[in-house]
Amino acid sequence: MTDDVQVCFVKEIDHIGIAVNDLESAINLYVDLFGAILEIDNEVVDQGVRIAMLKFRSGTRLELMQPLNNEGTVARFLNKRGNALHHCCFAVENLEETLSKASNSNIDLIDHAPRQGVDGQIAFIHPKATGGILVELVQR
Amino acid sequence: MTDDVQVCFVKEIDHIGIAVNDLESAINLYVDLFGAILEIDNEVVDQGVRIAMLKFRSGTRLELMQPLNNEGTVARFLNKRGNALHHCCFAVENLEETLSKASNSNIDLIDHAPRQGVDGQIAFIHPKATGGILVELVQR
Repeated sequence: MTDDVQVCFVKEIDHIGIAVNDLESAINLYVDLFGAILEIDNEVVDQGVRIAMLKFRSGTRLELMQPLNNEGTVARFLNKRGNALHHCCFAVENLEETLSKASNSNIDLIDHAPRQGVDGQIAFIHPKATGGILVELVQR
Repeated sequence: MTDDVQVCFVKEIDHIGIAVNDLESAINLYVDLFGAILEIDNEVVDQGVRIAMLKFRSGTRLELMQPLNNEGTVARFLNKRGNALHHCCFAVENLEETLSKASNSNIDLIDHAPRQGVDGQIAFIHPKATGGILVELVQR
């Protein structure tokens, strides 16, 4: 691949997404054991999850996700693996341009256009394109 | 838990560890697709892995790990799950003090004393203590 077809300059790791069966106890764990600060605790009904964002002192973050019901990808992931690291999220400067370049380079995408996440515009790349890892992109 | 028994103030997420079957193609993927920079590419023989550290523009990092043989925890993890997010690593200021506090608070540890990682002193917490997630601590 040459610079001409480079799809995406990632600025930084925005957060790590962790799927959990019990959000309350997971929040308490990261606050009490590791000194994280709870920033957001929201139900995202259209995605079927309750999401907590926690921040460390330098600003890097963890996202904890608990399914609201037994359907959807996060519930299936948890049924198969139990609590586990679910995805990593990279911050980009221009998400729409990144997705457009990815499409033009035949990168498999889950989201072909930005959609609203709990904190910024987001899109997921298909794990087929990233060697099996679920990667989220966010533009803040 | 009160402040008195708080084990560990995490400064930031140091890196995400990803287990891969093919390190070369994983490095190429993160460099070509996401613009990461390869910083370290080392065999860590006593851990039975080849490790690549890649940095994003802001300084946050990914660790890619490929087993050197079919033994060891990373090889077993890959045999079970294929390429997947393996651990997250939190940076702390004083690792020895953190481990001592953790022991005193009956937190299950894999490493009871700091050991040399590819880039700094490291120790792993047992997933039993962190709701199933493998957490590494590092002091740089």
